Amino acid sequence: MHIRVGYELIYDLPQPTPMILTLNIHYSRASDLIRPDHLITQPSLPIASYRDGFGNWCTRLVAPQGSLRLTADAIVQDSGQPEVTPHAAWQHDVQSLPEETLVFLLGSRYCETDQLSEFAWSLFFGTPPGWARVQAICNFVHNHLTFGYEHASPSKTALQAFQSRNGVCRDYAHLAITLCRCMNIPARYCTGYLGDMGTPPPYATMDFAGWFEAYIGGQWYTFDARNNQPRIGRILIARGRDAADVAISTVFGPNTLSSFRVWTDEVT
Amino acid sequence: MHIRVGYELIYDLPQPTPMILTLNIHYSRASDLIRPDHLITQPSLPIASYRDGFGNWCTRLVAPQGSLRLTADAIVQDSGQPEVTPHAAWQHDVQSLPEETLVFLLGSRYCETDQLSEFAWSLFFGTPPGWARVQAICNFVHNHLTFGYEHASPSKTALQAFQSRNGVCRDYAHLAITLCRCMNIPARYCTGYLGDMGTPPPYATMDFAGWFEAYIGGQWYTFDARNNQPRIGRILIARGRDAADVAISTVFGPNTLSSFRVWTDEVT
Amino acid sequence: MHIRVGYELIYDLPQPTPMILTLNIHYSRASDLIRPDHLITQPSLPIASYRDGFGNWCTRLVAPQGSLRLTADAIVQDSGQPEVTPHAAWQHDVQSLPEETLVFLLGSRYCETDQLSEFAWSLFFGTPPGWARVQAICNFVHNHLTFGYEHASPSKTALQAFQSRNGVCRDYAHLAITLCRCMNIPARYCTGYLGDMGTPPPYATMDFAGWFEAYIGGQWYTFDARNNQPRIGRILIARGRDAADVAISTVFGPNTLSSFRVWTDEVT
Amino acid sequence: MHIRVGYELIYDLPQPTPMILTLNIHYSRASDLIRPDHLITQPSLPIASYRDGFGNWCTRLVAPQGSLRLTADAIVQDSGQPEVTPHAAWQHDVQSLPEETLVFLLGSRYCETDQLSEFAWSLFFGTPPGWARVQAICNFVHNHLTFGYEHASPSKTALQAFQSRNGVCRDYAHLAITLCRCMNIPARYCTGYLGDMGTPPPYATMDFAGWFEAYIGGQWYTFDARNNQPRIGRILIARGRDAADVAISTVFGPNTLSSFRVWTDEVT
Repeated sequence: MHIRVGYELIYDLPQPTPMILTLNIHYSRASDLIRPDHLITQPSLPIASYRDGFGNWCTRLVAPQGSLRLTADAIVQDSGQPEVTPHAAWQHDVQSLPEETLVFLLGSRYCETDQLSEFAWSLFFGTPPGWARVQAICNFVHNHLTFGYEHASPSKTALQAFQSRNGVCRDYAHLAITLCRCMNIPARYCTGYLGDMGTPPPYATMDFAGWFEAYIGGQWYTFDARNNQPRIGRILIARGRDAADVAISTVFGPNTLSSFRVWTDEVT
Repeated sequence: MHIRVGYELIYDLPQPTPMILTLNIHYSRASDLIRPDHLITQPSLPIASYRDGFGNWCTRLVAPQGSLRLTADAIVQDSGQPEVTPHAAWQHDVQSLPEETLVFLLGSRYCETDQLSEFAWSLFFGTPPGWARVQAICNFVHNHLTFGYEHASPSKTALQAFQSRNGVCRDYAHLAITLCRCMNIPARYCTGYLGDMGTPPPYATMDFAGWFEAYIGGQWYTFDARNNQPRIGRILIARGRDAADVAISTVFGPNTLSSFRVWTDEVT
Repeated sequence: MHIRVGYELIYDLPQPTPMILTLNIHYSRASDLIRPDHLITQPSLPIASYRDGFGNWCTRLVAPQGSLRLTADAIVQDSGQPEVTPHAAWQHDVQSLPEETLVFLLGSRYCETDQLSEFAWSLFFGTPPGWARVQAICNFVHNHLTFGYEHASPSKTALQAFQSRNGVCRDYAHLAITLCRCMNIPARYCTGYLGDMGTPPPYATMDFAGWFEAYIGGQWYTFDARNNQPRIGRILIARGRDAADVAISTVFGPNTLSSFRVWTDEVT
Repeated sequence: MHIRVGYELIYDLPQPTPMILTLNIHYSRASDLIRPDHLITQPSLPIASYRDGFGNWCTRLVAPQGSLRLTADAIVQDSGQPEVTPHAAWQHDVQSLPEETLVFLLGSRYCETDQLSEFAWSLFFGTPPGWARVQAICNFVHNHLTFGYEHASPSKTALQAFQSRNGVCRDYAHLAITLCRCMNIPARYCTGYLGDMGTPPPYATMDFAGWFEAYIGGQWYTFDARNNQPRIGRILIARGRDAADVAISTVFGPNTLSSFRVWTDEVT
């Protein structure tokens, strides 16, 4: 299966403005790029790349005063298969978790583990450890929250989503991540493209998607509390402790995002 | 100058419990250890160390059911000189910041940069960039907050401290860090020992101290919005994005901290 | 059980000489030190500590011209129990090994994995993976080598021991480590004290002992191809890729070791 | 100056095979990547990256049975200036070396410091310490060895190169590193791309290059005993104690490297 993915962001900037972008398709999918996702800037600007502490490739630039258009349009090869469901993946004791996973047990900007720990233990204590527990958490979050773009807020945390009982995909991910961490299961945030391949209409207004990965059975597995079923054609951009680490853009100055489009379509 | 530092923590644990400890004096001070700060556990337990993503040496162990005593008692050599005040340290443009400092511009568990950005710009926009701006932030935080152990809370964030106008040293640090980041100055949280050397009485009840470092003039400099003056004998334990990364202990299960003592004294 | 351990090293030095010592009992046993193993130097010298990349605490000093005596005499508490035999510890697939273990699959100064790989696969291919394979390697090494202090050489490698069919405890460890790594099992070198507790006479002339640890079943387990049976009272000093990383002393200049004693005795 | 660099490796694998690759351009050059060097695998495979203990970004994957093609093709910005010659860089006393440099004084897989120490002192004792001594070592190695690909061997050590008097660039580096360490100068191995920019023909058949860095005058400086003159356009991939730590690929199973190409060309 070939999937066309891309974005167009247009910023209006009253002054020259440094930016950090986390928009590149993840390096682990580089082999699948039939047409690369090269960033095009208008006006044309010098850009620099760097790898953040999570391994994501980020882009730095200084935008001039005025209008800045950022766009990319890639074609990605995909197996077309739905994600595996790791029914047999066991839960690690904390003491046997690899060192590199431990930071994903801690609290982070949008994941207040200290605030939700008691609730998490009361609800998930009795669930079978490992995959079944992560799935129970996804089921809970999926049912507890009502989806709606009107509930989106860049400062919304897992606790706030839990209390307001609504949110968008990133809130579903943050709440599920927080509950996993409370139960001593390392969990990390993912952002990327996710289209409608294989799902029935109506189709969502497109945005970047947020989901998460949990470390069970000796590896990281994909979970998605928003959709809560295996999907086709998920294309990773970046991973971090939560959405604060993988904002698509961090703009160091006043700005207006005057246009924002994301696309993910099967190419036939 | 020789400084004796140490701690005693006693936990009561209803079941075997994994723990991660960030209690070792920072590796950058290892050469100053006249008597090392080796962790003593009672009962004696197998322990393992590892270096987290910030370079801090952490300790992992599994405590048995019952009472666990953790203690260390070190002697550290120190210059006895107060910290330098880097009056001439300039502020980096975002685009000239080293890549490894960029993560310290982002929001984190206790530092809601997105929530305080507007306030920060309104108040500090007119201050001279660089050292003077960081110092203006420290002055503001120092005056805005009222110190009091009764205001301490493990889940308190910079925004909450800002609004409640009170806190303990870690809240002073979190608020100053958040405001620095809002002004595009990388800032990171520090924890360690800080005694009363050279200050007038009355002396504080001892606890671990929290302060921060800001990246200006091409390096990281120490700032302390709580005390807001150069001090003698600060001994670093660990650095991170905020206190969530350098909790002295992360206990993976129910527990009671039944005793907690920290000491920092000049040895004569 | 209480064990008294210690050493006395006397060097003759024709000129002032920097030294690095790896002689401290491992930090993981600090809780068991009834009497600490403080290094005494004669003449009295300033010393500095640091932690190497493996977490071992090392000591730096500059010895003056003349005679230098280094000694320590500690009492260590021990369970008195023989080491566990992890019959059920499985072998990790290479792809599921924690990142921090991977360096212990590579070749190192005394462990020429590239040279012994073919042999290792021919001999151990058919053994059950995991504990049984490591034990088969220990059995092979135990029988293949003849022990003798006359076969000791500071530059002897695993391949040379394999070919000469003799060596001392560190050669047994190096050969077993190399064969484990060839079979994709992470293995690291250990040095420390090992007495005769619970073994029949005749007793060995005392030296520091070398053994190894293999990563199976999600953790590091102790193995000793020289003795090839569980022992009592093993007291770790340091771990590394092989003996090059944990030499008891690295002397940066000409020197004569005029006296060398190590002791390890049960205290009653 | 823009330099195009890349590689193509084709392996034939009789069974599914885990691999570790050290092929990414070093993170310190990430900002210079006009076109990143993302790894393309054919067939497309899941890959994961991690940072080894030296800070190099490595890649893990499990190759399926059959043919595996690994390739990358990057464009790197470069100053186009030849490397500096640090004539004034002094030699540190061992006791004033930073702790993190000390491991680069020890022996390692291909650098038998214990075997070459006496020779090194006899030959380089009289040379001026610091840069002049490292350069004297480079001069010696450059003249002592005869270059030839027919002398290449993956198990060849510094001592073997010294005795056979021939080798390839990695042998030049290993011998020079060993001699530096014998003279108490920390030295570490480097691998990367090195083209013919600014040198007269005939041009070498392309391979990855090996060189080294020595710690003098408070920093690490590049040296190249093979070429023994400042070069243009050296692009670092990874650093380690010697070539064992930075093998471009570590393949955990039988394999045939059926094709191997490396390119480094100025783009005009």
